[in-house]
Amino acid sequence: MADVDDRAGLAAGFNPKVAEALQQAARVEGHFPAFLGIVVERAEPGRITCSLTVRPEHITPVVGVVHGGVIAALVDHTLSIAVYPLVEPGKWVATVEFKLNYLGSVKEGVIRAVGSVERLGKRVAVVRVEVENAGATVALAQGTLYVRDPPGR
Amino acid sequence: MADVDDRAGLAAGFNPKVAEALQQAARVEGHFPAFLGIVVERAEPGRITCSLTVRPEHITPVVGVVHGGVIAALVDHTLSIAVYPLVEPGKWVATVEFKLNYLGSVKEGVIRAVGSVERLGKRVAVVRVEVENAGATVALAQGTLYVRDPPGR
Amino acid sequence: MADVDDRAGLAAGFNPKVAEALQQAARVEGHFPAFLGIVVERAEPGRITCSLTVRPEHITPVVGVVHGGVIAALVDHTLSIAVYPLVEPGKWVATVEFKLNYLGSVKEGVIRAVGSVERLGKRVAVVRVEVENAGATVALAQGTLYVRDPPGR
Amino acid sequence: MADVDDRAGLAAGFNPKVAEALQQAARVEGHFPAFLGIVVERAEPGRITCSLTVRPEHITPVVGVVHGGVIAALVDHTLSIAVYPLVEPGKWVATVEFKLNYLGSVKEGVIRAVGSVERLGKRVAVVRVEVENAGATVALAQGTLYVRDPPGR
Repeated sequence: MADVDDRAGLAAGFNPKVAEALQQAARVEGHFPAFLGIVVERAEPGRITCSLTVRPEHITPVVGVVHGGVIAALVDHTLSIAVYPLVEPGKWVATVEFKLNYLGSVKEGVIRAVGSVERLGKRVAVVRVEVENAGATVALAQGTLYVRDPPGR
Repeated sequence: MADVDDRAGLAAGFNPKVAEALQQAARVEGHFPAFLGIVVERAEPGRITCSLTVRPEHITPVVGVVHGGVIAALVDHTLSIAVYPLVEPGKWVATVEFKLNYLGSVKEGVIRAVGSVERLGKRVAVVRVEVENAGATVALAQGTLYVRDPPGR
Repeated sequence: MADVDDRAGLAAGFNPKVAEALQQAARVEGHFPAFLGIVVERAEPGRITCSLTVRPEHITPVVGVVHGGVIAALVDHTLSIAVYPLVEPGKWVATVEFKLNYLGSVKEGVIRAVGSVERLGKRVAVVRVEVENAGATVALAQGTLYVRDPPGR
Repeated sequence: MADVDDRAGLAAGFNPKVAEALQQAARVEGHFPAFLGIVVERAEPGRITCSLTVRPEHITPVVGVVHGGVIAALVDHTLSIAVYPLVEPGKWVATVEFKLNYLGSVKEGVIRAVGSVERLGKRVAVVRVEVENAGATVALAQGTLYVRDPPGR
């Protein structure tokens, strides 16, 4: 993977229109991000911030805290959009995989995930995500994205 | 981690009442598993099967397929309950971490996750999950659980 | 990632000459596989078996068991060659990432890693590895490979 | 995992004698760290720095760069010792798992891994590792440690 750009290069390729479109897309009623309550708060070069406010339907029945799946879904969404504003318009970015450590439980309030693009090559990108609630880090993730041409080309 | 049991030992400690309780818990209206549509189909010794049927609110706005967060949440739920029927009643099982590869996209139908307990020690367990849709494996995961006394003891 | 082949397709593309070359390459004195003692035992379609025999220099000073880094290196080698016999000659296969759970410690004897290609697409492959010693599974891994043209094309 | 300490708490429990012992242990001739050339450069509270200088026996035969297993082993060693200076003397720290992304290849010079303890609970710790060569990040890892009583207690 010699075809990598450094962090300085991330800003050069940042497309604010794509960033704005990602924020709009999350608001589409009836689809998953809005259904779960995910909001794209900020989209900066190489850094994306998503959040959700805990609601009763995020809670796990037995233990009474936020279900791990809610945090995993927030991490997945953050990963999936972190690279889009940095690549040539029209390219597709697929989440290949991620790994997530849960560090603490969440009861209420806002859960905020910040994704940082650690490396962006022509085809492969690596993003780290930190998830925070009430001033504490509650999860840490690291994932891999794959940049490709859309199907049919 | 020399304190591990082999697979043969898993059946000996299986508690069908706990397995039944986990299936009931997922049905509690207003909480996350029911909100997302997760059903605990089967709970066998060392093997748990969870599923959900794709609904419009599982779809990601831009690409029109099931959002990766739905699959991640299904994996998380499967992991989180796989070990409970195998440990002493009253113990808590926390999901420490997991890693998930996405292998293909899902458009419709039933998504089914099968979790297999690969190793169960006194404190640490490892579970693998295979996720299937329409006859194809769409995700593969591997996660770590931690068995502990409940808070306050 | 709709461009994936199923397991049946793996056998069709298997190149026994590449498999044989990989076995030879590991024997080159003075380079890492031979230095660590890694042997490529078998290379079958979609399935690769590597092993090493524990030597004093594999041991960790404090605890007296095989160092985790030896097992990690064996897993990495198994991953790195599992896909080569399945792709068009001349392509490069880069290990993008892997995740490894240690399940038990190793004191002596042969450590054997079996890598199974779970999915092979045009560009991205997923491989699982099971590591065994003295009849017990001692590590489980899951990794991602990226198939690319060699540099300069 | 409510039983976690914050980063400020890490310094309070730092034991410089343990840190020194870890540096000495890596120098023991005939065992794995010295065999591979791993040096523990620095052990500070919550932060450990290990390195190795590339030698011909670290190279992979076919491609002519440092074998991924060398980097994986360096990461494993860094993970395995990062938490020891922070826990009660006599406790054992086992590496449960880690995940590693390769970001670039290495040809020569010094490879340096810095491990940062992100969370330390009574039983479970999470450590991130960044690996650098010639001014570039060449690998990123995230792993889980388990703090336990030694066998027999």
